[in-house]
Amino acid sequence: MTPSKETLLNRYKQIKPYLHRTPVLTSTFLNEKSGANIFFKCENFQKMGAFKMRGAISAILNLTDQEKQRGVVTHSSGNFAQAVSLSAKLLGIKANIVMPSSAPQVKQDAVKGYGGIITISEPTLRAREEACQKIINKTNAILLHPSNDLDVIIGNASSAIELLEDQPDLDYVLSPVGGGGLIAGTALAAHHLGSNCHCIGGEPMNVDDAYRSLLSGKIESNETSDTIADGLRTQLGNINFPIIQKHVEAIIRVEEEEIIAAMRLIWERMKIIIEPSCAVPFAAVLKEPLRFQNKKVGIIITGGNVDLSKLPF
Amino acid sequence: MTPSKETLLNRYKQIKPYLHRTPVLTSTFLNEKSGANIFFKCENFQKMGAFKMRGAISAILNLTDQEKQRGVVTHSSGNFAQAVSLSAKLLGIKANIVMPSSAPQVKQDAVKGYGGIITISEPTLRAREEACQKIINKTNAILLHPSNDLDVIIGNASSAIELLEDQPDLDYVLSPVGGGGLIAGTALAAHHLGSNCHCIGGEPMNVDDAYRSLLSGKIESNETSDTIADGLRTQLGNINFPIIQKHVEAIIRVEEEEIIAAMRLIWERMKIIIEPSCAVPFAAVLKEPLRFQNKKVGIIITGGNVDLSKLPF
Repeated sequence: MTPSKETLLNRYKQIKPYLHRTPVLTSTFLNEKSGANIFFKCENFQKMGAFKMRGAISAILNLTDQEKQRGVVTHSSGNFAQAVSLSAKLLGIKANIVMPSSAPQVKQDAVKGYGGIITISEPTLRAREEACQKIINKTNAILLHPSNDLDVIIGNASSAIELLEDQPDLDYVLSPVGGGGLIAGTALAAHHLGSNCHCIGGEPMNVDDAYRSLLSGKIESNETSDTIADGLRTQLGNINFPIIQKHVEAIIRVEEEEIIAAMRLIWERMKIIIEPSCAVPFAAVLKEPLRFQNKKVGIIITGGNVDLSKLPF
Repeated sequence: MTPSKETLLNRYKQIKPYLHRTPVLTSTFLNEKSGANIFFKCENFQKMGAFKMRGAISAILNLTDQEKQRGVVTHSSGNFAQAVSLSAKLLGIKANIVMPSSAPQVKQDAVKGYGGIITISEPTLRAREEACQKIINKTNAILLHPSNDLDVIIGNASSAIELLEDQPDLDYVLSPVGGGGLIAGTALAAHHLGSNCHCIGGEPMNVDDAYRSLLSGKIESNETSDTIADGLRTQLGNINFPIIQKHVEAIIRVEEEEIIAAMRLIWERMKIIIEPSCAVPFAAVLKEPLRFQNKKVGIIITGGNVDLSKLPF
């Protein structure tokens, strides 16, 4: 079931032409502050501004020709919507996007800009799923899941593959944990391509379903979605969870104020715009200085699509 | 009087070890929006977060040993203060910094972090100069001017030198115009090292002293300092003005809302944090699409030291 090293590398070769090779940035100041040697893999500079491009192009490229003709549909509050729209546009197929009415205007605009056909739904999971189903009934479009899909997971792995090409001797690679699609791909890359590289997730304390799932051995839910890390409110799925159980060493939970402080530090010191979600792993490194002391630590900076009208500082 | 090509290149060689080679970024979206082919030279990723590092290290490196022992002093509301503090620290000499009480806390903290000795003054030019004079009387320190100093100008030229190394066939290079130290250096680099590369300045309409100075042939003042581009409120000096008269082709003035819109576009689309001042040249390109249509345009992104608590959006 677990994708092999060859699967990962072949897929990476296939999707590479559709992606930016994102830079890896470092900061002397943040290294001194954390005590670790941190390599930030900047997916905020990826096409459409987030790593989600990797999974979306991977999934759509691997549809059959017949499936491609039917078009795709997904529901997403943001980055996956943009990723599917742009990937579909690059491959000349139709993309229907169900967005909750709560989705930031900047993300709705971007989806439109990439040619996605938007349907607005109530911001509940049920309403989103129903809206998708209506579109499928009408168009026979293929439903794409943003995180619980093996093609998405394998595509997501390509970020850590590139990071390990640049820094082969990483001791750790960290990503945030939301729906589980990125951490699963990252863990696979660390397992197959790292040299004793351990994968660790960062998760907001308020939505620590993944932490609790690893404890209990079954997929747990969140009772609230109350976190600034809006990309991490979702829960794990049956495809990514077994990979996470097998290949993720630990999940470190952080408080809201730790996320905001970490985000602000990166903005102020690195002069790059990152989403709150991707400040979570850096906050995790700051929270456990002993674990990461003098270690080489890769962090996937997942995206930079922020609504500038709603900043936490 | 005008520094030669050799002077520029020799100085660049001398200061290079103390600087980051900053990246040149592009954006398909912003190219489509502007109709030009824009190359952003990202001094927001420079040491201490701004191009001012180039002029400061150039000036301090070229003091005599005896002058170095006396230490340096400057008054600055921000970036030059940090640049002098860090340059002095790297060269093991003492830096006294007079900062107006209105200087953002983040800039005061950075100066302290780089080891500068801060004296807070009232935020008038006279109070700042008096505070400097007191320090000079006491310590015999060398006064450094942030823009009207030939060593600073020659140091500042190094940003456009690197940009022209990367993109030798630029049609235009743009920088903002404040005190005149950056545009003078940039114009010298374009003149000596470009292949028919024209230097153009961007200036806020509210503080258009440089525009009016070029018209009248003498250094004009501003009646207000009312612009969001806080780095551009100062006026030209007798050393940089002749260089600007000779080598700057035009100055394009932009309104406050054009500056804010240009800044927001760069933040949202390029995911980099830039100061309002360096959105001015990009706003100028957007304002005159015909002039820049299909041209290769370099823009010096001057810095990224923004007080995140006081954003215009």
